[in-house]
Amino acid sequence: GYAKVDHHRSLRNGYPEVIYCEGKTKEQIAGIMEKLLEKNSNILGTRLDQQSYEYLKERFKDLEYHSMSRVMTLKVKEIEIKGKGEIAVVTAGTSDMYVAEEAAITAEFLGNKVIRIYDAGVAGIHRLLSKQDELRRCRVVIAVAGMEGALPSVLGGLVEVPVIAVPTSVGYGANFGGLSALLTMLNSCASGLSVVNIDNGFGAGYLASTINRL
Amino acid sequence: GYAKVDHHRSLRNGYPEVIYCEGKTKEQIAGIMEKLLEKNSNILGTRLDQQSYEYLKERFKDLEYHSMSRVMTLKVKEIEIKGKGEIAVVTAGTSDMYVAEEAAITAEFLGNKVIRIYDAGVAGIHRLLSKQDELRRCRVVIAVAGMEGALPSVLGGLVEVPVIAVPTSVGYGANFGGLSALLTMLNSCASGLSVVNIDNGFGAGYLASTINRL
Amino acid sequence: GYAKVDHHRSLRNGYPEVIYCEGKTKEQIAGIMEKLLEKNSNILGTRLDQQSYEYLKERFKDLEYHSMSRVMTLKVKEIEIKGKGEIAVVTAGTSDMYVAEEAAITAEFLGNKVIRIYDAGVAGIHRLLSKQDELRRCRVVIAVAGMEGALPSVLGGLVEVPVIAVPTSVGYGANFGGLSALLTMLNSCASGLSVVNIDNGFGAGYLASTINRL
Amino acid sequence: GYAKVDHHRSLRNGYPEVIYCEGKTKEQIAGIMEKLLEKNSNILGTRLDQQSYEYLKERFKDLEYHSMSRVMTLKVKEIEIKGKGEIAVVTAGTSDMYVAEEAAITAEFLGNKVIRIYDAGVAGIHRLLSKQDELRRCRVVIAVAGMEGALPSVLGGLVEVPVIAVPTSVGYGANFGGLSALLTMLNSCASGLSVVNIDNGFGAGYLASTINRL
Amino acid sequence: GYAKVDHHRSLRNGYPEVIYCEGKTKEQIAGIMEKLLEKNSNILGTRLDQQSYEYLKERFKDLEYHSMSRVMTLKVKEIEIKGKGEIAVVTAGTSDMYVAEEAAITAEFLGNKVIRIYDAGVAGIHRLLSKQDELRRCRVVIAVAGMEGALPSVLGGLVEVPVIAVPTSVGYGANFGGLSALLTMLNSCASGLSVVNIDNGFGAGYLASTINRL
Amino acid sequence: GYAKVDHHRSLRNGYPEVIYCEGKTKEQIAGIMEKLLEKNSNILGTRLDQQSYEYLKERFKDLEYHSMSRVMTLKVKEIEIKGKGEIAVVTAGTSDMYVAEEAAITAEFLGNKVIRIYDAGVAGIHRLLSKQDELRRCRVVIAVAGMEGALPSVLGGLVEVPVIAVPTSVGYGANFGGLSALLTMLNSCASGLSVVNIDNGFGAGYLASTINRL
Amino acid sequence: GYAKVDHHRSLRNGYPEVIYCEGKTKEQIAGIMEKLLEKNSNILGTRLDQQSYEYLKERFKDLEYHSMSRVMTLKVKEIEIKGKGEIAVVTAGTSDMYVAEEAAITAEFLGNKVIRIYDAGVAGIHRLLSKQDELRRCRVVIAVAGMEGALPSVLGGLVEVPVIAVPTSVGYGANFGGLSALLTMLNSCASGLSVVNIDNGFGAGYLASTINRL
Amino acid sequence: GYAKVDHHRSLRNGYPEVIYCEGKTKEQIAGIMEKLLEKNSNILGTRLDQQSYEYLKERFKDLEYHSMSRVMTLKVKEIEIKGKGEIAVVTAGTSDMYVAEEAAITAEFLGNKVIRIYDAGVAGIHRLLSKQDELRRCRVVIAVAGMEGALPSVLGGLVEVPVIAVPTSVGYGANFGGLSALLTMLNSCASGLSVVNIDNGFGAGYLASTINRL
Ligand SMILES: Nc1ncnc2c1ncn2[C@@H]1O[C@H](COP(=O)(O)O)[C@@H](O)[C@H]1O
Ligand SMILES: Nc1ncnc2c1ncn2[C@@H]1O[C@H](COP(=O)(O)O)[C@@H](O)[C@H]1O
Ligand SMILES: Nc1ncnc2c1ncn2[C@@H]1O[C@H](COP(=O)(O)O)[C@@H](O)[C@H]1O
Ligand SMILES: Nc1ncnc2c1ncn2[C@@H]1O[C@H](COP(=O)(O)O)[C@@H](O)[C@H]1O
Ligand SMILES: [Mg+2]
Ligand SMILES: [Mg+2]
Ligand SMILES: [Mg+2]
Ligand SMILES: [Mg+2]
Ligand SMILES: [Mg+2]
Ligand SMILES: [Mg+2]
Ligand SMILES: [Mg+2]
Ligand SMILES: [Mg+2]
Repeated sequence: GYAKVDHHRSLRNGYPEVIYCEGKTKEQIAGIMEKLLEKNSNILGTRLDQQSYEYLKERFKDLEYHSMSRVMTLKVKEIEIKGKGEIAVVTAGTSDMYVAEEAAITAEFLGNKVIRIYDAGVAGIHRLLSKQDELRRCRVVIAVAGMEGALPSVLGGLVEVPVIAVPTSVGYGANFGGLSALLTMLNSCASGLSVVNIDNGFGAGYLASTINRL
Repeated sequence: GYAKVDHHRSLRNGYPEVIYCEGKTKEQIAGIMEKLLEKNSNILGTRLDQQSYEYLKERFKDLEYHSMSRVMTLKVKEIEIKGKGEIAVVTAGTSDMYVAEEAAITAEFLGNKVIRIYDAGVAGIHRLLSKQDELRRCRVVIAVAGMEGALPSVLGGLVEVPVIAVPTSVGYGANFGGLSALLTMLNSCASGLSVVNIDNGFGAGYLASTINRL
Repeated sequence: GYAKVDHHRSLRNGYPEVIYCEGKTKEQIAGIMEKLLEKNSNILGTRLDQQSYEYLKERFKDLEYHSMSRVMTLKVKEIEIKGKGEIAVVTAGTSDMYVAEEAAITAEFLGNKVIRIYDAGVAGIHRLLSKQDELRRCRVVIAVAGMEGALPSVLGGLVEVPVIAVPTSVGYGANFGGLSALLTMLNSCASGLSVVNIDNGFGAGYLASTINRL
Repeated sequence: GYAKVDHHRSLRNGYPEVIYCEGKTKEQIAGIMEKLLEKNSNILGTRLDQQSYEYLKERFKDLEYHSMSRVMTLKVKEIEIKGKGEIAVVTAGTSDMYVAEEAAITAEFLGNKVIRIYDAGVAGIHRLLSKQDELRRCRVVIAVAGMEGALPSVLGGLVEVPVIAVPTSVGYGANFGGLSALLTMLNSCASGLSVVNIDNGFGAGYLASTINRL
Repeated sequence: GYAKVDHHRSLRNGYPEVIYCEGKTKEQIAGIMEKLLEKNSNILGTRLDQQSYEYLKERFKDLEYHSMSRVMTLKVKEIEIKGKGEIAVVTAGTSDMYVAEEAAITAEFLGNKVIRIYDAGVAGIHRLLSKQDELRRCRVVIAVAGMEGALPSVLGGLVEVPVIAVPTSVGYGANFGGLSALLTMLNSCASGLSVVNIDNGFGAGYLASTINRL
Repeated sequence: GYAKVDHHRSLRNGYPEVIYCEGKTKEQIAGIMEKLLEKNSNILGTRLDQQSYEYLKERFKDLEYHSMSRVMTLKVKEIEIKGKGEIAVVTAGTSDMYVAEEAAITAEFLGNKVIRIYDAGVAGIHRLLSKQDELRRCRVVIAVAGMEGALPSVLGGLVEVPVIAVPTSVGYGANFGGLSALLTMLNSCASGLSVVNIDNGFGAGYLASTINRL
Repeated sequence: GYAKVDHHRSLRNGYPEVIYCEGKTKEQIAGIMEKLLEKNSNILGTRLDQQSYEYLKERFKDLEYHSMSRVMTLKVKEIEIKGKGEIAVVTAGTSDMYVAEEAAITAEFLGNKVIRIYDAGVAGIHRLLSKQDELRRCRVVIAVAGMEGALPSVLGGLVEVPVIAVPTSVGYGANFGGLSALLTMLNSCASGLSVVNIDNGFGAGYLASTINRL
Repeated sequence: GYAKVDHHRSLRNGYPEVIYCEGKTKEQIAGIMEKLLEKNSNILGTRLDQQSYEYLKERFKDLEYHSMSRVMTLKVKEIEIKGKGEIAVVTAGTSDMYVAEEAAITAEFLGNKVIRIYDAGVAGIHRLLSKQDELRRCRVVIAVAGMEGALPSVLGGLVEVPVIAVPTSVGYGANFGGLSALLTMLNSCASGLSVVNIDNGFGAGYLASTINRL
């Protein structure tokens, strides 16, 4: 019974396949991968721990692992660029990079060009302002921030394209596991902004790709 | 001091002007409208109460008021269609319509064609399934729901375009003012979905328009 | 003092005996089992960890352990079918199976026939719709879901029998340990639906059995 | 657009029709009622305010209003008893009666015989114990309680049939609008118990009826 | 018993007197004022409603009322400037002005020069940047914001003096009565920043004055 | 600096001394104990972990350790009975015993006679009713319960002496670390009842002793 | 059905009778009072609104109403002093007096001598210290405080008798309806302290009386 | 990309540099330190774990580590006293010292003289009162407390200078990770008081230094 394929985050026709690895045994993941390879599909796996990766590495020799974001990718064919423009992924701090990389790798895997602007939080606003040209060139902006989560609000005022806000669980105390950043983003006064779940880099990358294909 | 124009959330060039009326006196709103009319701008006002509307109606004779959504519109020139496709606005129940109409009127005001599909909640899934053709024709979907807020998840699985989820405060008890629908939407397993604040029809309509212009 | 038998939640005449193992030492559990065996009773134990199981296995040779759901069963006599119809156990994702199996094994142990339908979440509604015949044949439905927890609402609309909703703690971020799924289920618009505690597969299986005996 | 029928809580074939009146205008309710009368259906309306009732009373002369529970009933034909046994509705205090009556009237309207046992809270346990014979005769028990919400736990230990727990918003301070009673009930150690939303007497009455028809 | 003077939060020697009017009857407030006038003290009253003001106005003819901030002031002698520098009071939106004015009037009443910079929220960052010279001239900055509450973080990065962050209850939905702005501010990455209670303009003005006298 | 004695919560004259061991190093605890022994005082230590105990055991040879409740006691002289009557310590389940024992040992250490009634939860009310004589003999009752925490309400109705309610963190899911039991107890309808912090057996035992000396 | 007596807060033999008036109609209260007068009992009613009082005043001519605490008392016979010592009722501010008076009147009605010490909050600690002699004379102390709720902690350190802490809902912002004071009191480091529900003056007065009779 | 310098908590010109070590690898920290040393800057690092310290110790031989507060300091030049007065750091208990030391070391590192007054909680008020002279000599007071967090309120009443309140996560049960102390402090009745994040000793020390330089 347990060995059957999980379509939880599986994508539609033309799209590569995605596996949400959290809560699956390494044997279950290997089983799913084998099924997908039969369809000659590129594979993206999120929330994969190091130990499972090492097990899988033995079986799938071209498997790549991005340890900061805990993402794995297996490419059996070239990724075709399908996005019409560029996607910016911006973070407030360096500690938000684990989520930003999940978003960026997802967007790239789905056929988009990605610009990374990291450590540009609002407490030092000039770092962000100096990147305005790059930002305005993009078709979608992903804004990743923990703690007070104010970055997407400022970004929303600087660009006229959609801003996808990703709260992270980075912080301590009254951060309450990312709640502070989440509420900040939901209450943003900036227009053209929407929010995904705390630490959900994958969801942001996927949505950005969906928009960028329109 | 208090009479000065509030540019809070004012929109960018080419866009009509928007006034957030909550917490402003009717005299303040009239003052802002006069300033905007000098620029020959169409005007959208959200969260306007009936009493303020009656005061404004005296002064601005073409003013229209949508009492369900508490939105006012003043058109000094034709609205130009700028969106590339259609935007669907879907609700779970009839009681969510006050938010859906805020979204729909905002999107129309910003130059988009809107399809309304109301009262299509998931506890009677066949109503939703019977609308699949209409839904698949759209370029963006806005999904509005209170109580358990499950509609966007199902919609996210039916369409391949971006879904903007809007939780409403409709419900009672463990609904906690819209928190239940908000959490449901943030935790959705469907891909291509993001969330705006509880009851924020304006934000959803604005974001849909931003995406539809890309 | 501490060694005495715990009748907390012990079941009534005619029913097999159940031990809630969490927070009990392996010696305490063994002691309770010996007392129950004197009464020639079948035994169900929930929330038993692997290590305690190994200790008990030495002492009770027919002991079976279901590692996914952490349930143990010891059968000294045949289980008699007492439920009048079938009970369906449905999950949204594969990661909810640990709770679903607790419910299913409990219901079977209490003398019911159980149908398992796993990984049928609402973001891919057609998987669920394809199971309608099986579902409509059942006398009670247990719906197990984490994350957004929308499954019971859709099920409640598809069947006319009681639906027991079980939120799971599966998810991350704004899931808050199962709170999102719990609130979703409590606010469901579907009729004929009620809710048990987060991850309480046992409670759902027991209640389904109680209903199925009526 | 707004005049169309709301199927939000509408019931299935053979069942009478139900209108959830909260958030609907009196004209909308009258419109729905007229549509239902064309089908010669008995009508139940919940959460109807006094003022709307007076408007409807003019139009539908046999309309009955239960002011404590804010329920209306319109009977165009005799209610047929379809439940196989009796349903007990028990409250902890007299102030919980507004919810209990919603449950009781719903169950009666759906063709069940109902026994009312009110003001039998656990701080005076002998009142409850003195009702054991009546309680044990029933096929389903609905337990309604606010404040600490302990009644369903005690009832769950006294009877062997399903107990439907309904938390009410009765109380003050750390009651947090019914949250205290809700959490108490979800955490109950008693078996055979499940929970509906705070103040959801209708849901409890409907579920009890669903079980009682099995 | 109830008529006695309330010294709760009364200020120390050299300082004018302050009355917290919420929860006091107009007669109680008048009684306290008479006692304070005997000491020839200037009087500040916060959270005074319009109706009580009208009653007091009859009795104390020089009484001034600031209706936006619900503050009253009664000056029997000139206010002496005791603060060593200027205090800036900055708001994100115009709707935050009711709190900002409470802070500004308090600071002025306690002998400080105040600079007001209103409607300079972060979603339009250039409004704030254009005020940098004024801001850098000040000895203390009070930053008042509702909704996402991001203003103090940006300000904290622009100035090197203490920033007192005041969350307001302005907003709706997931704003939860000011909780979103409060958490944002507590989690700020900017240094030199601290927070007072939601809507506590008085506390911010008083603290700014305390710092400005050092 | 860090080595100095911590008089935080130290008790008054005539009372033995108490050390709250959580967050103190084993060397700090030993240092405090040595200081107290110079005063020829009996010593009670709470929340002591096994490892620290083993270190202390080497140094203080008469030290006793109660591993279930993580309490240590060191008696240099006989404990004198100072309480005027008996104190009952009652638990709902066996898993609440770790808190109950902290309360019981504290009360005994402070010179009281204690009656233990364990595993008498309300889902099997007859176990509790069978103990009424014992309960009515006592001068103070401590009621310890996790999960739904209904025990103190029932006890409050059975006895006329003060009931001290102690919520425990026993449970899972919507128990939220003891919040459910805490809210239940604070909202109790029973008179003569008050509440201490979650898992605070020490506080309950100390208060019971304070009352029993009156 | 609805007219029957509510024993919700009714007291035991020898004790006068108590009616919890919230959520009861004035006719229901009158009915209960008549029943109690037949037993020649003194009557205490809590949470009675002004309008119901005026109705009852017509019927029961000796009825007294304490408008600040919304308590009514009807004395058909002298109140006998049964408490062995004095009870102190202390408040932090004058705005907490409505709860303190409920406690004090309850304690007096149950036969105790009460000392009132109002407006002695910890931000001006010398007011409290100056009352130490009075406080140390008492057998029980009730400490009533809103906002930060720190009073009971300080009192717990000053006296050796039981301290009953009553949080009030006085405050604004992050006070969250009394939650801040409630949590403060539950976490108090002072020994000999327990807590009742927010604004529950009655419960504190009743418990103090129970202790004072021991 | 990941190796670049994190300016998250970096300070302005003239100030020494600060590294927030949580969530950075030991190699990242070493890299940042090398960059800073090129500028001949003293270095402060907060939230550094023991293991990373040992790695860094090898590379930077003058590195000092304060294990209680998990702070590291590296001094390449003498610290110049820039603060105009003294800063008091006061704690309620010894277990709050880990936060207090972070504040104290930060303030000293930024050029201030610091007075430490530890274990002076309000449940034993005389310890605090005996320190009044020392406290009144200071220019800023930092008040650190967990559990009920009442210390800053009392301190605010004793001194006339700014009080910076730091809630700690010390405690258990209804302490909810420092929430109880945080709410207490935000709701304080004392004037001249503001609050930083739970456990944010660094922020308090930095702000105190900012004020002390004015
Ligand atoms: N209902 C609404 N909810 C959230 N934001 C709104 C709403 N209506 C208008 N806005 C925004 O508020 C801005 C106008 O704010 P103001 O300048 O205060 O009138 C607009 O440009 C919009 O971005
Ligand atoms: N996983 C579970 N969750 C909730 N209740 C359970 C669970 N497993 C067993 N129970 C109940 O716990 C009782 C046994 O508790 P005990 O006597 O403590 O072992 C059984 O009779 C059941 O009612
Ligand atoms: N709006 C306010 N919010 C918080 N505290 C205030 C406010 N207004 C005045 N206060 C404080 O309340 C004290 C007066 O309180 P009272 O004696 O109750 O009038 C003053 O000394 C101030 O410290
Ligand atoms: N488990 C406990 N929970 C709460 N307070 C305790 C506990 N154990 C001891 N205490 C208190 O802590 C004080 C000793 O604290 P300390 O001086 O930090 O060891 C004692 O006098 C008691 O008042
Ligand atoms: Mg924008
Ligand atoms: Mg989709
Ligand atoms: Mg159904
Ligand atoms: Mg039962
Ligand atoms: Mg700064
Ligand atoms: Mg009692
Ligand atoms: Mg004491
Ligand atoms: Mg002060």
